[in-house]
Amino acid sequence: MVRLFPQAVTLAHKLLGEVVSAGDTAVDATAGNGHDTLYLARLVGEGGRVYAFDVQIPALEGTARRLEEAGLVDRVRLIHDGHEQMEQYVPPGVRAVMFNLGYLPGGDHRVITVPESTLPALEQSFRLLLPGGVITIVIYTGHPGGSEEASQIEQAMAALPQPEWDVVRIDFPNRRHRSPYLLFLQKL
Amino acid sequence: MVRLFPQAVTLAHKLLGEVVSAGDTAVDATAGNGHDTLYLARLVGEGGRVYAFDVQIPALEGTARRLEEAGLVDRVRLIHDGHEQMEQYVPPGVRAVMFNLGYLPGGDHRVITVPESTLPALEQSFRLLLPGGVITIVIYTGHPGGSEEASQIEQAMAALPQPEWDVVRIDFPNRRHRSPYLLFLQKL
Repeated sequence: MVRLFPQAVTLAHKLLGEVVSAGDTAVDATAGNGHDTLYLARLVGEGGRVYAFDVQIPALEGTARRLEEAGLVDRVRLIHDGHEQMEQYVPPGVRAVMFNLGYLPGGDHRVITVPESTLPALEQSFRLLLPGGVITIVIYTGHPGGSEEASQIEQAMAALPQPEWDVVRIDFPNRRHRSPYLLFLQKL
Repeated sequence: MVRLFPQAVTLAHKLLGEVVSAGDTAVDATAGNGHDTLYLARLVGEGGRVYAFDVQIPALEGTARRLEEAGLVDRVRLIHDGHEQMEQYVPPGVRAVMFNLGYLPGGDHRVITVPESTLPALEQSFRLLLPGGVITIVIYTGHPGGSEEASQIEQAMAALPQPEWDVVRIDFPNRRHRSPYLLFLQKL
């Protein structure tokens, strides 16, 4: 059986797989445990490039380890800085940007993404993105501050102009309360 | 450019294309102008079968014409009855059921789908569906009664048990107010 809508993160991966191809540039705005960075590194292929941001050293170390094991560390630039500094590191012409909000699983749960930096990072992503390029935002509301971040981001994304942007909200009404959901943006 | 999330109806078609294959049985619960019936007739192939319901004769006539032009009328059974009678006509073992709610475009706008028949039709679809099978519901809220139907359906779908059902809601926050959106169900 082909399950069309698995978890929010795997759904984001599937959608990115339809857009990102070999030679592309992609950004993991929240490297975290490195799963998304590794996935993007595979998609962009040998000639591609991934920029991965995190403010926490343990996250970047874990991500580096994961990439080394897969032999893909050469195509990734790991950046120890906030994603709201994205434009200082990443040149325009990006095919995809991933955001996986909240805290680092297994890390310090007090260190969370906040709208004060997530929103500027999104604004910069808009400028860096190629036409047809996409942004995925996996949103968690189960931790303190999560709902507030979610509602600020949703409000900002709902204000994006048509027909320049497709903004899509994908959630799972029969899953447990506060199950993660996905915002998907495509620059038209 | 591959646009990943076009209109709700074309998105429903795309998702069905990932699930329905040659030889399958599918149901168009709201034949209307026949676009969905024709799409399903193509997907199920020569050995497949489509059951298409509508309460309005002009809708069935238009659908029949469309199918004849495409040379596909033989694999479709057109049924002049309400979709809440679905189990009287359709044997179990269905891969997909499509609902496109509201009124018939170009027809009598006072004839609309209503929760009193849409909900029983959905209940019957649940029983007819194969494991892995899907239901797409394109929902319109721009006409009188539309919002009430939408909210009753959403409430019922949100109550479907996990892990037996994936229930997914896909809407477009930056499109015009009352833009159609999609509920997607998969039987696991």
